[in-house]
Parts: sequence; structure tokens; C-alpha cells
Amino acid sequence: MNAIEGWLADYAPQALDTLKAFCRIESVSTDPAFKTGIEDASRFVATQLRDAGFPLVDIVETGGHPAVLAEWCAAPGAPTVLIYGHYDVQPPDPIDKWTSPAFEPTIRNDRLYARGVSDDKGPLLIPIIVAKAFHSLHGKLPLNLKVIIEGEEESGSPHLSPTVARLKDRLACDLVVSADGAMWRADLPSVTVASRGLIALEVVLTGAAKDLHSGRHGGSAPNPIRALTQMLATLHDAEGNVTVPGFSDAVTPPDPLILAAIQSANFDAAAYFDSIGAPHPDPLPSGAELLTRQWLIPTLEFNGISGGYAGSGTKTVIPASASVKITCRLVAGQDPEAVKSAIVRHLRSVLPTGYAMQSLDRGPGSAAFALNPNLPALAIAESVLSELLGAQPLRVAMGATIPIGDVFKTHLGAEMLFFSFSTSDEDYHAPNEFLRLSNFRLGMVAWARLIERLAKA
Amino acid sequence: MNAIEGWLADYAPQALDTLKAFCRIESVSTDPAFKTGIEDASRFVATQLRDAGFPLVDIVETGGHPAVLAEWCAAPGAPTVLIYGHYDVQPPDPIDKWTSPAFEPTIRNDRLYARGVSDDKGPLLIPIIVAKAFHSLHGKLPLNLKVIIEGEEESGSPHLSPTVARLKDRLACDLVVSADGAMWRADLPSVTVASRGLIALEVVLTGAAKDLHSGRHGGSAPNPIRALTQMLATLHDAEGNVTVPGFSDAVTPPDPLILAAIQSANFDAAAYFDSIGAPHPDPLPSGAELLTRQWLIPTLEFNGISGGYAGSGTKTVIPASASVKITCRLVAGQDPEAVKSAIVRHLRSVLPTGYAMQSLDRGPGSAAFALNPNLPALAIAESVLSELLGAQPLRVAMGATIPIGDVFKTHLGAEMLFFSFSTSDEDYHAPNEFLRLSNFRLGMVAWARLIERLAKA
Repeated sequence: MNAIEGWLADYAPQALDTLKAFCRIESVSTDPAFKTGIEDASRFVATQLRDAGFPLVDIVETGGHPAVLAEWCAAPGAPTVLIYGHYDVQPPDPIDKWTSPAFEPTIRNDRLYARGVSDDKGPLLIPIIVAKAFHSLHGKLPLNLKVIIEGEEESGSPHLSPTVARLKDRLACDLVVSADGAMWRADLPSVTVASRGLIALEVVLTGAAKDLHSGRHGGSAPNPIRALTQMLATLHDAEGNVTVPGFSDAVTPPDPLILAAIQSANFDAAAYFDSIGAPHPDPLPSGAELLTRQWLIPTLEFNGISGGYAGSGTKTVIPASASVKITCRLVAGQDPEAVKSAIVRHLRSVLPTGYAMQSLDRGPGSAAFALNPNLPALAIAESVLSELLGAQPLRVAMGATIPIGDVFKTHLGAEMLFFSFSTSDEDYHAPNEFLRLSNFRLGMVAWARLIERLAKA
Repeated sequence: MNAIEGWLADYAPQALDTLKAFCRIESVSTDPAFKTGIEDASRFVATQLRDAGFPLVDIVETGGHPAVLAEWCAAPGAPTVLIYGHYDVQPPDPIDKWTSPAFEPTIRNDRLYARGVSDDKGPLLIPIIVAKAFHSLHGKLPLNLKVIIEGEEESGSPHLSPTVARLKDRLACDLVVSADGAMWRADLPSVTVASRGLIALEVVLTGAAKDLHSGRHGGSAPNPIRALTQMLATLHDAEGNVTVPGFSDAVTPPDPLILAAIQSANFDAAAYFDSIGAPHPDPLPSGAELLTRQWLIPTLEFNGISGGYAGSGTKTVIPASASVKITCRLVAGQDPEAVKSAIVRHLRSVLPTGYAMQSLDRGPGSAAFALNPNLPALAIAESVLSELLGAQPLRVAMGATIPIGDVFKTHLGAEMLFFSFSTSDEDYHAPNEFLRLSNFRLGMVAWARLIERLAKA
């Protein structure tokens, strides 16, 4: 144990007190009733950063909830790392499902229970405390460190991209390390190296100018539900594979280590269908196939469909229009705009005569996140985790979308590494959110080693 | 002109006054606010029937609005005819679209404008006045006449079938003649000899037990919208023809005179699509093909589809379920239950694994109405119309459903003839409903001749 790790071990009780104090602040970003909590949390983070030795700490306006920026750039010639995190939390609802109050941090079985403790107050506090260790022992850091902690992650980070764009000179760096994110499973050390992108669109089909009587007009008038269902049926084959021409053309092969992780993960297909309460398909796909579909295959999912009468009973109407909401999860290589165009072009190619089709963009879309598998920083992170966890961490992907990776890549040209010590089973959008305190302590050692080794890279 | 027709010509001004008085009664059946109007109208009809000489007139309870029954059976050995009509009317809304008030009958251009005048107060008053003519001149009728005038036709006749079943001995007859219905076009004499039946069902497809995150689960979880649209796409071919096995097996060929009417009707396809505000299909079908599809081809129409998120914007959800509402219009020969079973059987045959399907019956269904084309009463009706209108009337079908035909056939075993003097362009479910007074006068002569000739048949 070196001096920094010894200092962190001695400081553990105070670190826990700081985390508890942070968790008592009700910093729910989506609900204006928690405005005071947001302000308190941003000031709390700024105070911790100043205490940790950062000479420059700002609470900056974003147009929404403020972000906290810090810079400690006193290591000429050494790399510059930008740390990302968020101080806002999910709403505590449903409140009556909590065993102990959501904003009264409580320890049970070496777990700290509180809203936001795992997502993302615990994980973001770790590198700040590590900086404080360097400051206390050496009065300086071995590299240049910048920090951006936003307050709107749980609201979809609406102001993050413009803020990073505006402050791109201040945020310039060689690497972004996200303290947000999660280990995949408690029993499997992992590092997230890819996530899927997202596009959203809506397609509206119109026939007649108004709803028509299905007796009088049935058979002769256009029925947009019939046309739309026939068009949508051409988007997948019977196995659910997307069949839109051009949809997957630009897909680049995934990191072979992700494929290896899928094979070694022992994902249980039957348990998966049981967990979502769905009948088992026959034949049952393998767990590896399901994981491949969740992590590495782009999707085209229908999120909503509507048209005509949706009330109880029956109404003999031929509706004037019908519409469908579509989102796609993209993988590395796919361009969001190109994929959107391919879908719209294909739907127009199968549009029957006698109908008008309108396609509506629902958001700008975001590309998939895929870390360069040969990035030296990734190897460093893996070696740190490997020596601390006793096993080489799996390189995992996630099916969901992490827009921040795209934000930093676009505006700063920097790769982003996930280095988080929460675990995806810690109920972070649900009642009884918790953080394993063993990981809180482990994370401090890991971040200290990461910073030391990145400094020498 | 015989004595009856002379009497009717002299009586025309009084007949018009009676019709006006009837139209002033606000007998809207769907709205409880018009309860007094319903009571007044049923009493008005009963009074007219007594004045016309019917020795037995009853206002009978049905469980809903009362029906008026009358019997004048004093011609032993002569046929017994039951006349059907309804005294209730559609709501007058939107009131501000009326040129003159809905319940203040007003003559413009030999048309009487008032809510209900065409549907069905004018047409049902005609045979009552004709009966009065026979009563005034001869003190008797040449055949046995029964009358049932209901008060819930505009509410879907919910109590007609049980009432006819309960009173089937009193209502026993050789033939039903409906004063309700309509000539197809003002410029084309027509008699309705067929209408399509109806079945309604709803199909619900379920995947997982609850809505799922489309990022986390996209690609691996069942998507009921995807499965449902693929299943629904197998119900029609690209031209919109129903492809369900067994769906059309029992269809019997239509009356050749209907086919002849379709060919001679000069139905304008381009004008049809313009009238419903729909883009023209390319190639444009012929008018005869459209009319065939409306009158003689069974349909399977989607009246509503729903599943997942239907609000504004986007929601990244894979819905737990999706559902579709279906109605079919049936033609002669099709059994409603058999058709329903064929659809459900087919959908089950294309149901992918990993989903649960539920089919819900939405109403008992009704068979198509098709008059025996060789019925002597039909030939008599056609000859009367032919000599009065100067042309052989077309035998037309209608795409909508007339459940009353099925009711009388089932409970009384009697065929039903439509003999109505409203025209389908008289805006009877819209503002400014009117009746052509020339048809009101013509109808009296026609009914008089019909009764005289049916008496001798």
C-alpha cells in the first residue's frame, strides 16, 4: 500500500460522512419543487472540489440547472483528463416502497441506501476524494484534471451539448473519464466499451379526409391501418431481423473482446424471459444470441401505434389516418441520418397508391458509442481493475444509449472511458437504491491508481 | 285516377299539416333530455293510427322507449302485411348549421326541411294516411294490416329483437314492408334488395408482462406491435382482397339484377374519391368495381389499432401489448359465427411463438340481408314503382347493415320488402334534413297501389 492508498484507508469514515451529507440533498432534476435541492447540491459539489485543492471552481449557467466546472492544470507536459459526473437524481417515487427514507442515507449489510447514492453521487465523489488525497499528501496532482458535473442527466441532459460546445476551450482534454455508468454484474468485473445510438421518427399515413362509415365505404375507401400494417410488416423478417435495404450497411465489426464476453457471460435465456414475464419462444434462443441482440445488433422497434377508435366496444369507422412511432438503436458505424433516410425511403417504396405518407423527425438522434479498443487508457483501466478485482474485466456493451459519449467526441474530439463503481443491480431508478460500500472504498484505490498511471502514459 | 288516389290528392294539404305537426315533436332517442318528445311522438303515432281506422292500437313497453303496435285484421283469407317504421330521430346537432330551425318544419323549393322528416317520419306517415283513405272511402282495408313503429332505431334498436320475439304471435304476418330505408339516388328509381351483415371482434396480443425499456431490451424482448402488424398483413393481399382461408367460402351469388344495376349506375370513381377527400389510387378502379366492393364483396376492416405510447413526442418503450378492432361486412351466404372463427383460426395460425393472443367478441353479429329475388311482392313493388316513375327501378344493395331484416326473418319467418320514399341524399343524419314533397305525394299513391295489389296476390 502506497501513501495515497494509506491516506484513503484512513479517510474512509470521513468519506462516508461526506457521501451521506451529499445524499441528504434532495437534488431531483425533473421536478421544479426540488429547486433548492438542485442549488444546494451544485454548491455542495463546488465546495468538495475546492476542499480537494482545485484552484478554479465555477458554478456555470447552462440555460437549465447549473453545471459545476473545476480545473487543476498545474502539470505541464502531463496529460489532461476531464472527469464527467452528475449531481442530480431520479425522483424518489414510489416513496412508500422505500424501507428507509429516500433522502435519509442508511447502512444495511455494508450497503448505503439512498436515492442517488449509486447514480451518481457515490461514484462522482470518488475521484474528488482521490484528488483531495493527492492535495493533502503532495499538494499537487500528477496530471492535469478538469471536472464537469452536470445537474440534468436524469432529465436527458438537454443543455449538456450546448454547454460543452460553448466551453470547449476550457474543457479541452486528452481523455474523458466518466464516473457515471455501471459495472454490468456484481459477480463479473466489467468495463463498458460500447453502447447503442438512437434515432426516433413517427410515420403518419392518411387516406380519406375524415373518418368514414365502415358499412357505406367498407371495401372501396382507403384504410390507413391496413396499409400501415402491411408496410410495417416489410421492415422485419419472421425472426425479427430488420430487412430495410441499407439499414445495416455501415455496421462495423465489434471489439472481439465484447464477443468473447458474450460467450463467457453465461446469460440465461429462460431466466431472461421469466424476468420480463414473457412466454418462452420456441425454440428458445441461446443466452449468447440474446446478449448479441441486446448489445451488438441494431434494432427497429415500434414504440406505439394508433389509428381509429381506441375506446371500449366497437365503432364502425374507417379511420382517416394511422400512425406509428419508431425508435432504432444503432451500433458502431451507423450514421443516424442515413439510417433514418433508409427507413423513410423504404416505407415510401412500399407505400400503396391512394394514401399520403408523412414522416416526422423525433429528435436529432445520436450515434452509437464505441471506445477505440486499442486506446492505451482502456488497457490501463483494465489492468487497474484486474489487479484489484482478481480477474480480467469483461469488455461489455450496453443496449441503451449514452448520448454523452457522442457529446464529448463531437465537441472536444476526446475519447471517453467509463470508470464507474456502481453496479447495474443497485436499483438506481427504483425504490431502495443502494451502493455497495466495498465498491466505494475499492473505487478510491482504483481511481488513485488510474490517475497515477495515466500521468505516466 | 281511382277513388283512393283522388281522395289522397284532395287530402294532400292536410297530410302535409300532419307531417309538420309530427316533425315539431322533438323525439331524439339517444338523449334523455328529449324524454317528453319521445312520449309525445309515440302518442302522436298512436292517434294517427286510431284516426286511420285501426281498431287495435297499443303503446307497448319494450324495456326502452315504447313501440306503437296496431292491428286491423278484418280481411279473412287475404294476406297479412306488417309495416315497420320508427318515430325517433337523430339529434339535431350541430344546431347552428341549420338554415331554419330543426324542429320548425319549413318548406323551400317543394322540400320540407326538419329533423326526422326523411328518416323516418314522412315515410312512415304515408302508409298510415293510405290506411285512412281506405277507411274513409270503404270503411275497410283489402288485406290485413299490422304496424310496428319503434322509438329506438337511431339508438341501434336495442329492444326491437326481444320485443318482436315476445310479441311474435301478435306480429305474425306473410310479409314485412319497411317504410324505413331510402331510394339510392334521386335520379334513379331503385329498390333495396340486399345489405351486408356485420361481425365485430377485437384481438389483443401480449408479449412481456409490462412495458420495457427499448434500449435495454430492444432486439431480445417480444414486441407485440411488430408481431401484430405482421399478422394483420396476412389478412389482405396487396389489392385489399381478404385472404383469410374460408372467409368467402359460403358466399352465394347475388341477384343478377343487382349486377345489372351496378353496370347501369354510371358510378363515378374519381368523384367518389374526391367526395371522401382521398388521393386517387393509380390505376383508378372503375365505378362498377367500386360499387361491387361496396355492395357485394365482404370486407374485413380495421376500425382501430393501439399499443404502446400514443402521446406527443417519443417514448422509448417496448409495449406489453397491442390490439386491433376489426369489423367485417358480410354478404349473403356467410354465417357470422363461421366467419369470426375463420379469422381467429387464421390469426392463431400465424401467431409467432413468444406471444399470447386473446380474441374478444364484440357483439353477436348479424347476417346479411338478401331478399328472395323471386318474391312475388318484390315484383309487385317494382311494377308499382315502374308505372309511377316511368322506368324500371334498379335493384340495389347497400354496404351498411340493416339488422331489422334479420330480426323479422328470425322471429316471424317473414321476408321484408323496403318501400321507402326518402332518398339517400336527404341529409338525414346531418343538418338541413329534408324530404322531397313530390315523393311524399307519390309515396301515397304507390302505397295505395301496393296494398291493393298485395291483397290480390
